[in-house]
Amino acid sequence: MRGMSAEQTKDPVAEQIRAVLDGRWESIRQQLRADERFPVAQPDLRLGLDEHRQRTLDLVTGLSATELVRATLPESLGGTGDVGASVTGLEMIGHGDLSVFVKAGVQFGLFGGAIANLGTDRHHERYLPGMADLSLPGCFAMTETGHGSDVQSILTTATHDPETDELVIHSPSPAARKDYIGGAARDARLAAVFAQLVVGGENHGVHCVLVPVRDEAGSPLRGVTIGDCGSKMGLLGVDNGRLLFDQVRVPRENLLGRYGDIDEQGRYSSPIESVNRRFFTMLGTLVRGRVTVGAGAGAAARSALTIAVRYGLQRTQFHYPDGEHEVVVMDYRAHQRKLLPRLAKSYALALAQNALVEKLAAINSGEITDEPSQRELEARAAGLKAIITEHATDTIQACREACGGAGYMTLNRFADLKADTDVFTTFEGDNTVLLQLVAKGMLTEYKSDFQELDTRGAILFGARQVTTSVIERTIGGSLIQRLISGAPGKDGDDALLDRGGQLAVFEDRESHLTETLAMRLRRAGDDDADSFAVFNDAQDHLLEAARAHVDRVTLEAFVSAIDEAPQGPGRDLLDQVCDLFVFSTVEANRAWFIEHGRLSSSQSKGVVARVNELCGQLRPHAATLVAGFGIPDAWLTTEMMADLATF
Amino acid sequence: MRGMSAEQTKDPVAEQIRAVLDGRWESIRQQLRADERFPVAQPDLRLGLDEHRQRTLDLVTGLSATELVRATLPESLGGTGDVGASVTGLEMIGHGDLSVFVKAGVQFGLFGGAIANLGTDRHHERYLPGMADLSLPGCFAMTETGHGSDVQSILTTATHDPETDELVIHSPSPAARKDYIGGAARDARLAAVFAQLVVGGENHGVHCVLVPVRDEAGSPLRGVTIGDCGSKMGLLGVDNGRLLFDQVRVPRENLLGRYGDIDEQGRYSSPIESVNRRFFTMLGTLVRGRVTVGAGAGAAARSALTIAVRYGLQRTQFHYPDGEHEVVVMDYRAHQRKLLPRLAKSYALALAQNALVEKLAAINSGEITDEPSQRELEARAAGLKAIITEHATDTIQACREACGGAGYMTLNRFADLKADTDVFTTFEGDNTVLLQLVAKGMLTEYKSDFQELDTRGAILFGARQVTTSVIERTIGGSLIQRLISGAPGKDGDDALLDRGGQLAVFEDRESHLTETLAMRLRRAGDDDADSFAVFNDAQDHLLEAARAHVDRVTLEAFVSAIDEAPQGPGRDLLDQVCDLFVFSTVEANRAWFIEHGRLSSSQSKGVVARVNELCGQLRPHAATLVAGFGIPDAWLTTEMMADLATF
Repeated sequence: MRGMSAEQTKDPVAEQIRAVLDGRWESIRQQLRADERFPVAQPDLRLGLDEHRQRTLDLVTGLSATELVRATLPESLGGTGDVGASVTGLEMIGHGDLSVFVKAGVQFGLFGGAIANLGTDRHHERYLPGMADLSLPGCFAMTETGHGSDVQSILTTATHDPETDELVIHSPSPAARKDYIGGAARDARLAAVFAQLVVGGENHGVHCVLVPVRDEAGSPLRGVTIGDCGSKMGLLGVDNGRLLFDQVRVPRENLLGRYGDIDEQGRYSSPIESVNRRFFTMLGTLVRGRVTVGAGAGAAARSALTIAVRYGLQRTQFHYPDGEHEVVVMDYRAHQRKLLPRLAKSYALALAQNALVEKLAAINSGEITDEPSQRELEARAAGLKAIITEHATDTIQACREACGGAGYMTLNRFADLKADTDVFTTFEGDNTVLLQLVAKGMLTEYKSDFQELDTRGAILFGARQVTTSVIERTIGGSLIQRLISGAPGKDGDDALLDRGGQLAVFEDRESHLTETLAMRLRRAGDDDADSFAVFNDAQDHLLEAARAHVDRVTLEAFVSAIDEAPQGPGRDLLDQVCDLFVFSTVEANRAWFIEHGRLSSSQSKGVVARVNELCGQLRPHAATLVAGFGIPDAWLTTEMMADLATF
Repeated sequence: MRGMSAEQTKDPVAEQIRAVLDGRWESIRQQLRADERFPVAQPDLRLGLDEHRQRTLDLVTGLSATELVRATLPESLGGTGDVGASVTGLEMIGHGDLSVFVKAGVQFGLFGGAIANLGTDRHHERYLPGMADLSLPGCFAMTETGHGSDVQSILTTATHDPETDELVIHSPSPAARKDYIGGAARDARLAAVFAQLVVGGENHGVHCVLVPVRDEAGSPLRGVTIGDCGSKMGLLGVDNGRLLFDQVRVPRENLLGRYGDIDEQGRYSSPIESVNRRFFTMLGTLVRGRVTVGAGAGAAARSALTIAVRYGLQRTQFHYPDGEHEVVVMDYRAHQRKLLPRLAKSYALALAQNALVEKLAAINSGEITDEPSQRELEARAAGLKAIITEHATDTIQACREACGGAGYMTLNRFADLKADTDVFTTFEGDNTVLLQLVAKGMLTEYKSDFQELDTRGAILFGARQVTTSVIERTIGGSLIQRLISGAPGKDGDDALLDRGGQLAVFEDRESHLTETLAMRLRRAGDDDADSFAVFNDAQDHLLEAARAHVDRVTLEAFVSAIDEAPQGPGRDLLDQVCDLFVFSTVEANRAWFIEHGRLSSSQSKGVVARVNELCGQLRPHAATLVAGFGIPDAWLTTEMMADLATF
């Protein structure tokens, strides 16, 4: 990597692209790139478990003085309340040791986020400053051994005792054990515990209670049994642990009571009457964690691509037929096909992620306040988290293989990138469950058909009862509409020739999948229907519809970002990258397009040929395109590039 | 897993299936399953690097007294020379710590195999006993930092010095460094070094020379610089290292001279005149290593599926609409689709692997001696190695995700299964290069068209000049022909309804891809053609043809194994599993089938529906099907199953 940096930073096209990709929070990105104290450290795998954990804690503590953490605090407590800056800063950390990214995400995003979003002013004042400066390390105790995706069914109870005006936190069975809790094994002193709130003998559903778990010296408090999850596949710097509560008493005020509180007379009240709706509203406010995971996964995929593309541009193998020169591996079509469509998708998803963060920030700041927008944000966050983390797993794997044996050596980064990101497809929502949540949102257009499903089948979807459709165009609405309307022909050979036609093709796929899904699920409302069987028979259809939705939203974000970019070669190159994203997405789903009469057989073959052609056209720009990711060389130093430099 | 074992071993259907899957070497499999001293140990990840390496060495040394290692020695040296037993025994070890599998594979398969296949009697007598009892730990030094797949271009030289009648081994540049060499970092005393053999100033191409690298005390010998690759993604018990030679002298007799030797007068001679053909013949004899890697990868995938399916059969999440019971996750279609087609493919590939080992054994024992069979074995070994290792990476990943957060914990095995097998797609031949080798073999039917390509483009294929086609039916020839001929209709709706029609569909796909590939590549022979461009433009087509070939060979092996199985419910169940393999393979490639007029749109949708239907039909047999893999419970104990048992 060395030696190349001067050239890369001089590449004006890469610089134009970087500015587009940096988006609204460019300044915090640039600030962090230039800040040598910023802990975008490569993981140090020589460390033992406890050393790794201590180093991770130290690096996270070091963040407390930065803009990133100031952004997590409200203005009333001396912060900037700029959630976009907070998420973007964490994303940048995602280029380094992902244990730091996750540990920081747990402290500032999940633990801090629970207090900020579920608590009231008194909780904010009392706990957020310590949360931010790490004098109060916390954890987020939601998942239990027996219930992960199905949070509504967790078993831990928080029972109000009117005699003492306390809440009694209790784990009634081994399945109720809080599990995989980041921070629990070693550092956390205060836990945000999700539990069934029982007041006056009545269960009001899942609420969050702050429960001290360790004293200042680090010893478990009475009634709290703490376990260590021990060795994991990756994220070795994060101290995941287990918590069991045996009738642990905390003051009533420890209930984070924004959406449901107990008054001094021991009476429960909530601004939201429906238990179901209250539950999903509370969970909805925690969307930031999910957005952050997608951000980090995208960063990790871009790190991997940067390393693999640069290696592929220097590594040679086998001679040309002339027998004199060896072929640069990036010149092989198979190698281009491994890396370039994934690079294009990485750009697409990064821009979609940027648009998501803008929406999150607009809602968080109160700029947007309507309920439908909040629902759309949640659905989009779920969908993008699922697709970006899946993409990261797939891309890092492909990049490792593209670097052969060198890719297997720890110093070349794929070992930690792979192992650390592997659980991203699971935590903050299992991807399958999240895609179901997206599909549920898409179906709300057909809501009147689903009264029965909503009551009998809602939990199966792991989703809330939503009140509006999320399929509406939310990014660049008028631009996209203009492009689609201006497309010359929508069903001929030319459907994919211009951007408007491409947008129409993506939208048509989503609509058709949604409509036909609705028709199938409608049967669940029949009196004699086995609604589980109806849902289950359509589950693969449902997941495909959700994917089509995310594809469409992603393309719209890509098109909007290009539209807003200044004219120039950087924008022109992004236009080609967008083409590759479009054609490789259609190629991956081309069976569907032919089966449903959207492409003829020969058009479908033409799509494959076009992907090959675009790979060839982008090949000369591969170095520029990874430079455009804007990852400082120092964050990605690898041994294999140094090896090549010595030949 | 506990508690279930009694039931499982009683399952007579699983027992029937196990017997089919065990195949010809059932007895050694059963012997090893019952042998408590057999080192199918789970990896111990608490160990430090050196402890892990020592434990691995100890376990491999412990194998020396077993049938497995006796099988690697010829009868003349007290062994049984049963290569099938040797490969099968190593496959069984692949259910445990894969460091032991790889370290044993390096010692007995690669190091021992080089001596056995490239050496002559005097080498056998002198070195094989120490190889087998580990008193002579060795390594296999082929790959260099600058050349991995392209072995013909390695830079290390072995130059005959007529003055002293010695060979001088030398690394002329950093790129010539031997890299990733298992055993080199710590244990190996003797290296089988591949180098350009220069005699009388003439380069005779790559040959193998035995070079002592360490003394008895373990110190590097003069002129040998040894490096340690250090931390890797996985296989931490294998001491991969680097070797640099500075004019190291060894006696002329250290040349493994079966295919090219130097006489006392310092004259080089070889039974094979063509340098190219000699090179590929030598490499061809080393096919056992590649066969073994496929075996181990298949075993690891079956371990992962066994764990994930059993977990999926006990784990529940979300309630049925009745609100009373929770849904067993294996009842979700999405979960079935994650696991069951991969389970079906695992059966298919295991049976294809068995057939491959039988062929290897037949050639090794001299039962089959013709050159075309040897070429076919090499092509099949390359193809199956590529597809099985790719399948293992994909399957272990899917299984990890299917177990959620529990799957991320080291004790639940996916951490080591994933990390250890990850490099299997790279070592013993990069998968892309191996599939090219398969395609080259398929094209030899068109050999007359490729005179030009053979001379100008052969190296690009990383393949030998072969003399016959490998597309001929090699497994169950007459049975398959009978089934295809008896198929009622081959182009209507019914093409996939019976086994004969399915076989015809697989064969037709391979033939069409091969024919059209040949037409494209023919242009490389034109005088004005850029033969690299012609090859490169067709590279994705070429790889697809190779995959179609492996699919066809795999299906034929599956069908033959079922045909040979005794009638009964086990065989009937395997028949259904075979159907799922067929339909999910067609589903994955259905765009091609429609594009080429083999399936109509509605038939294609029917294939998708049939996969869903078969998943539902096999769901009740999932426990039987993983029990049929025949992996003793003790080899797969996991913490998460113990957790579930406590609820």
